[in-house]
Amino acid sequence: MRKLALSVFACLAAAASAQPPAWRPTPLQGATEPADVVAQSAAADWRPIDPENLLVVDLADGGRIVIELAPAFAPVHVANIRRFARAGWWNNATVYRVQDNYVAQWGNGDAQIALPAGVVAQPPAEYERPLAGLALRPLGYPDSYAPRVGHVDGWPVAWDPERHMAWLTHCYASVGVGRDVAPSTGTGGELYAVIGQAPRPLDRNIANVGRVIEGIAFLSARPRGTGALGFYRTDHGEVPIPIRAARLAADMPEAERPRFEVMRTDTPTFAAYVRGRANRGGTFFQVPAGGVDICNVNVPVRRRTAP
Amino acid sequence: MRKLALSVFACLAAAASAQPPAWRPTPLQGATEPADVVAQSAAADWRPIDPENLLVVDLADGGRIVIELAPAFAPVHVANIRRFARAGWWNNATVYRVQDNYVAQWGNGDAQIALPAGVVAQPPAEYERPLAGLALRPLGYPDSYAPRVGHVDGWPVAWDPERHMAWLTHCYASVGVGRDVAPSTGTGGELYAVIGQAPRPLDRNIANVGRVIEGIAFLSARPRGTGALGFYRTDHGEVPIPIRAARLAADMPEAERPRFEVMRTDTPTFAAYVRGRANRGGTFFQVPAGGVDICNVNVPVRRRTAP
Repeated sequence: MRKLALSVFACLAAAASAQPPAWRPTPLQGATEPADVVAQSAAADWRPIDPENLLVVDLADGGRIVIELAPAFAPVHVANIRRFARAGWWNNATVYRVQDNYVAQWGNGDAQIALPAGVVAQPPAEYERPLAGLALRPLGYPDSYAPRVGHVDGWPVAWDPERHMAWLTHCYASVGVGRDVAPSTGTGGELYAVIGQAPRPLDRNIANVGRVIEGIAFLSARPRGTGALGFYRTDHGEVPIPIRAARLAADMPEAERPRFEVMRTDTPTFAAYVRGRANRGGTFFQVPAGGVDICNVNVPVRRRTAP
Repeated sequence: MRKLALSVFACLAAAASAQPPAWRPTPLQGATEPADVVAQSAAADWRPIDPENLLVVDLADGGRIVIELAPAFAPVHVANIRRFARAGWWNNATVYRVQDNYVAQWGNGDAQIALPAGVVAQPPAEYERPLAGLALRPLGYPDSYAPRVGHVDGWPVAWDPERHMAWLTHCYASVGVGRDVAPSTGTGGELYAVIGQAPRPLDRNIANVGRVIEGIAFLSARPRGTGALGFYRTDHGEVPIPIRAARLAADMPEAERPRFEVMRTDTPTFAAYVRGRANRGGTFFQVPAGGVDICNVNVPVRRRTAP
């Protein structure tokens, strides 16, 4: 009880000052290592990814980047992205920006190309969505940016219980829609992927539409552009990386489709996985942290053999 | 007062459940942008970096990586690193491990080379240090891993006010000492730099000895190794990156020494800088976050013209 009283006092003090409320991690010795949780998981702990939500980007040099789209969070942008893919928008486009510890971006850049039929030229600012309809699993640890963070259906999210709104968090490998300075100027034709420390200030400022689930190193291991914001300076001999084609898995011949599954985030298995991420142990880690940030959970994704 | 009562109730609820205490960001519109804070800073807002604390790593391909060492946190390891540099330990060594979203590591790897004279073969586990003597500036936002985070003398740190201990946090570009499975097996001869999402679970599990202040892209933009943990597989034709020489700036001719300064973290200028990082605005950001994590503050470092 003395501990509880102290905790209330700390909270009062925090409410009165600029300090965040007191929180102490509760490290757990002997938590199952995350890799072992994955190894011991059952088939029912995973959900397959719908091929309509898989964007397969093939680079001219042989690299393949596979992206899962998030229609539950940005339905109009995702519909646009499907139309761009089906119209061949990214075939012969390039990766033209690589900014260290931030993002890699691709598309047709400033080229004046007519939007494909059906693409919404000015989509709504799908930067957050109502909580209603989302089965949220709280992470259980504090966040530096939002009142609450956790997972829904395999996605890392933040939410505000007072405003009843939720949004995808910008984590390593998150995919967003490039836009101009004015909001709602991004169609989905120019996309970026995060290749550094989670740029959470972008949350609620730009449409977060998915995440790279395979091949992120084909973006992160590239030379950085020396122009402002990491744009490649072609006038200095920096060469944008050519994209051969970008297609939806649903449009690929059955035999060629990559198939993936994501660990479900509403199961005891996922709770064990988070516990393992927050309390790394095994042979190497001596001191478990007792906490983890939303962008270091890394929801497992793997190849699926059955269709 | 009603708000305060609610906040206390939320804290009580948090103490009783597994949930972290309630915290709401307080976004600030119109905060000075971080770049503007830097531009408007005075000379007294910066501290020069001692050339004894600057490790200059020159790669054979012309890339230069400059590291600031942190003797206040790992004195024995830093003394070792200075001895390694002076004995030419890294001359003709290699970067032999690049693991995506984690670390790049360099040194002599498994080569059997005698330790230079004066190197402590089994340094103490300098994974944390007493709070006493540190002028800590609290960040003012919650952290997912530690009771408190903030800055001291330009370094990002976490601390535990109950245990009276502090430690450097593993952020993007942090430099640590590779070790074997057993603790205290790292001398400082093998070093790694973080090239992805802050691997905070390494905090207090390994010696964090500094940070790359220039040239991190010469590590982060490299091909990833395909061996376990990102080690280059030379048997598969993967080529470690040769290091030409690594020297302390103090040992370079005056005219060749790179000179740097770090923004002081105990000033109103730094408070304005943090406020700007926590409340991105300007022309692009519409919704300031009202919070920032310790590894996204990015304490400014710049070239210094005067000696």
